[in-house]
Amino acid sequence: MQIGFIGLGRMGTGMALSLLRGGHDVIVYNRTDSKAEALAEKGARVAYDVAGACKGDVVVTMLSNDEALKEVTLGDRGILGSLQRTAIHISSSTIGLDLSERLAAEHSARGQGYIAAPVLGRPDRAAEGELFVVAAGSPDAIAQAQPIFDAIGQQTLVVGNEAPKANLAKLSINFLIATVFESLGEAIALIDRGGLDKHQFLDLLTTTLFGAPIYKTYGALVAADEPPAVGFAAALGFKDIRLALSASEKLGVSMPFADVLRDRFVELLATEGEEQDWSAVGRMAFRDTRQRAGAE
Amino acid sequence: MQIGFIGLGRMGTGMALSLLRGGHDVIVYNRTDSKAEALAEKGARVAYDVAGACKGDVVVTMLSNDEALKEVTLGDRGILGSLQRTAIHISSSTIGLDLSERLAAEHSARGQGYIAAPVLGRPDRAAEGELFVVAAGSPDAIAQAQPIFDAIGQQTLVVGNEAPKANLAKLSINFLIATVFESLGEAIALIDRGGLDKHQFLDLLTTTLFGAPIYKTYGALVAADEPPAVGFAAALGFKDIRLALSASEKLGVSMPFADVLRDRFVELLATEGEEQDWSAVGRMAFRDTRQRAGAE
Amino acid sequence: MQIGFIGLGRMGTGMALSLLRGGHDVIVYNRTDSKAEALAEKGARVAYDVAGACKGDVVVTMLSNDEALKEVTLGDRGILGSLQRTAIHISSSTIGLDLSERLAAEHSARGQGYIAAPVLGRPDRAAEGELFVVAAGSPDAIAQAQPIFDAIGQQTLVVGNEAPKANLAKLSINFLIATVFESLGEAIALIDRGGLDKHQFLDLLTTTLFGAPIYKTYGALVAADEPPAVGFAAALGFKDIRLALSASEKLGVSMPFADVLRDRFVELLATEGEEQDWSAVGRMAFRDTRQRAGAE
Amino acid sequence: MQIGFIGLGRMGTGMALSLLRGGHDVIVYNRTDSKAEALAEKGARVAYDVAGACKGDVVVTMLSNDEALKEVTLGDRGILGSLQRTAIHISSSTIGLDLSERLAAEHSARGQGYIAAPVLGRPDRAAEGELFVVAAGSPDAIAQAQPIFDAIGQQTLVVGNEAPKANLAKLSINFLIATVFESLGEAIALIDRGGLDKHQFLDLLTTTLFGAPIYKTYGALVAADEPPAVGFAAALGFKDIRLALSASEKLGVSMPFADVLRDRFVELLATEGEEQDWSAVGRMAFRDTRQRAGAE
Repeated sequence: MQIGFIGLGRMGTGMALSLLRGGHDVIVYNRTDSKAEALAEKGARVAYDVAGACKGDVVVTMLSNDEALKEVTLGDRGILGSLQRTAIHISSSTIGLDLSERLAAEHSARGQGYIAAPVLGRPDRAAEGELFVVAAGSPDAIAQAQPIFDAIGQQTLVVGNEAPKANLAKLSINFLIATVFESLGEAIALIDRGGLDKHQFLDLLTTTLFGAPIYKTYGALVAADEPPAVGFAAALGFKDIRLALSASEKLGVSMPFADVLRDRFVELLATEGEEQDWSAVGRMAFRDTRQRAGAE
Repeated sequence: MQIGFIGLGRMGTGMALSLLRGGHDVIVYNRTDSKAEALAEKGARVAYDVAGACKGDVVVTMLSNDEALKEVTLGDRGILGSLQRTAIHISSSTIGLDLSERLAAEHSARGQGYIAAPVLGRPDRAAEGELFVVAAGSPDAIAQAQPIFDAIGQQTLVVGNEAPKANLAKLSINFLIATVFESLGEAIALIDRGGLDKHQFLDLLTTTLFGAPIYKTYGALVAADEPPAVGFAAALGFKDIRLALSASEKLGVSMPFADVLRDRFVELLATEGEEQDWSAVGRMAFRDTRQRAGAE
Repeated sequence: MQIGFIGLGRMGTGMALSLLRGGHDVIVYNRTDSKAEALAEKGARVAYDVAGACKGDVVVTMLSNDEALKEVTLGDRGILGSLQRTAIHISSSTIGLDLSERLAAEHSARGQGYIAAPVLGRPDRAAEGELFVVAAGSPDAIAQAQPIFDAIGQQTLVVGNEAPKANLAKLSINFLIATVFESLGEAIALIDRGGLDKHQFLDLLTTTLFGAPIYKTYGALVAADEPPAVGFAAALGFKDIRLALSASEKLGVSMPFADVLRDRFVELLATEGEEQDWSAVGRMAFRDTRQRAGAE
Repeated sequence: MQIGFIGLGRMGTGMALSLLRGGHDVIVYNRTDSKAEALAEKGARVAYDVAGACKGDVVVTMLSNDEALKEVTLGDRGILGSLQRTAIHISSSTIGLDLSERLAAEHSARGQGYIAAPVLGRPDRAAEGELFVVAAGSPDAIAQAQPIFDAIGQQTLVVGNEAPKANLAKLSINFLIATVFESLGEAIALIDRGGLDKHQFLDLLTTTLFGAPIYKTYGALVAADEPPAVGFAAALGFKDIRLALSASEKLGVSMPFADVLRDRFVELLATEGEEQDWSAVGRMAFRDTRQRAGAE
């Protein structure tokens, strides 16, 4: 299969590697050339503009936000104008419902396919082809795209025929992950101020009711003595919470936990800067506790 | 071992059964006689007042709130006045830090032992001796009480020498459980209004990052079409959130998620009555959604 | 002075009437012709497109949101392209900081003036020329526009040279008004459920510390037995809270009260529909109380 | 009239002074003698225990919280046991509904009168006899107590026959005042970060819709560059918010604004200590802003 791939951030690079390993003919494009060249060494061909990545059967986009995807898709010499009739645009970016709806409509008007296929998993899992793919789009298009999903993921979950449904599922999951940060942050603040050992408390959790990867992996990050390395950037996590809030407004659902997260992200970014893993939002709950502990 | 057992609600009854099955000599007391008599058929002796249950080496209390425990412990002919020097009071109730501190001090002043040993697990697990016991108290007392913990639980986790630490751990865990209700409630409200299948969404969660009992068991309860049967009563869950908030005030920790839960419980109890499982608090997030769905 | 006026909603119509009464030569334009014609009877000339309202020294826009203002300003044959060099665009709409910044830049690039001049007061006050004008822009432009402000307002408050500052002031004030709805709503819910007379309570407030128009006018609306007539639409109030939240994200300020208001508006619009005065958001606090009272 | 007066904090001292100036025979009691002696110089007689202040027709209590009032009323040689049949206890403290209900019942059982009569106004107003008195109790008792209310207040507002109603009104008012702190805090944070002058913004508010003492007096305190002097202590304000939350739980009313205030007070007391005016809670909204401004 000939696949264009646009957006070579950490996740995108991992996904493109998995496609190459799966034997596909991959033409990559990235605004910054150096990232594309690194993939060329692994067998990718390099396109020097968006249109150059739109010549095959499928183009996959993995961009950081709505604006970047809009530019690449709707702009001059963008995907919409460059993709062949009957070819498919697979959008794996975490974007809002409105943009997904709009792209579905515009591609459809040109006889092109459009699948929203956001993914679950961190960059290392992407490079191993072990992501979970949450897909929505026309059954035909999804059937055609299956080899791609098989290359990047361990499992594909189809959640409907309309693309925005996959985006909503992804936003809901990222919201749920972020609630775990805050929940743990508040609990650990109590535990810590109360004189218990926070690491022992996390063990207690994960050996009983809370034995899921989400509590094991992120519990350690939230409780760490030093801020953890950036896996998924706080600014992106904040964007996802804002998109979830927009979805909540569109759908008429009040979300007080999402509101709390919004405020935590605002404070995190304003006081501790951009260079943060998004789990740091859970650390805000005991920021004062940490400061006091430092002062005591 | 001769063990008094006071408080035969659903959890208490299950724990007393496990003690009997463990071969202990158990003298039970409950304000309502009928519950004690049911246990007599399983081999328990029945005491007709609190003092009557305080003659052995240990008395275990499993009561629904601070007031009930205060009455039984501090009242006329209560545990404090009835228990022998060197005997131990094991309090398994979920109570506040202040009361636990006070009981530790009062028992200590009389040469009696005091262990806070709240438990994790639902009533059926109690009856099977499969609880998790979270204990705090003097190492000697805990060593002495170990056979009891072994009879009721699959594991004992000692979190410190001062009894209130076990209570704080338990309150923090119940807070964390309740946050899962609200998180799921908000996410399911989005999913449902957005036209996705909520059960499929829960499957997606629990086969990926959220594969813990807490999401499996409670996800189904929150998403159920009908309110679930009462496992742990909403009024008790509300009490625990209030105790967590009190602890947060004492320890100087702000807890916005706990605040949201407080309000949800207030609304749940005011609008849907007392006969609710505490997971119903997560259903408040899509109460309006449910009402609208009903009207549409 | 020759003044174009675009946007003849309730507020716009009132402002245009005040300009006519002030002796100005007013050319009005509205997407729906009928509203313009009603003003023609009062002496206005009618333009049949945006450009037709841009021939004078000044054009005033009073539109309901960012999108409407963008269309009128940036669209084909919009204000930017139609206004003479040295003429001034006075934007009285309540809009976001980003759009205001963009318009300031674009007008400046063409040698046109741009003033953000949102107003305080309800439509009847607009028609009486009794608004408060909150203005920001270059001192020269503001001096030139003063006769207009004098016609529509009782007072002009200049808050800076950069237009977005006036928009921020306006958003902050609308946020503050909305907080009064929620504060009163919660207090009245308590008062009412506690068996006190809510009207007597409001009297108590407004004769003591809370003797401001905001508590007198809106207290009555929040406490009313029937939903009040629409003065300022809930959908517009919601838009303003969302703009305040966007500003808070841009400026790095967490705003938990604004979050609560966001959720209340989401619930209000989802459960009681669009036809609501924005003060109805305060009535959500005792929605359950009202329902229970109805059922009792 | 012979009046006992118990509780000589800032407010109590002011009230006692007004009673003396009104020509009443006042016997004061305070746990700390020095405060009583200062009043002796103004004509008060001094009692050396609670019972000594209970010999007249009326005893007024003005204590800082439920515990202090309980001790003085229910304790050995307390008011309940010392007051004559037909004499009246006027409780001006801001206390919770449950205690007020209990005191009403206990006094009534002994044939004694009980009026809840919390007051509005700061200490200087108390000393000038310019408070607002919010009273509830039996009409007979209130008629009898009127000369006292006339001495301390400019106006008496009777809100019902059952004492707790006056306490609920007072808690609701203190809640409303505290919401103004937070509302102003969030708005000022926006204004300040947005580069506007916060004092000019406050002027704008108070000359338009927000022209009430509450915004004039407290706006200045919230916006001040230095923390203001303690008028009403933050710890007392926090207590009142907690009592309002308790009332909300009892009455089945959710209060998200009160929750936000709870958290702000928790943070204020934990990070900036006890020596704070309660308006400082509004300053927490721009604490980070202040810190960043300091760092810039």
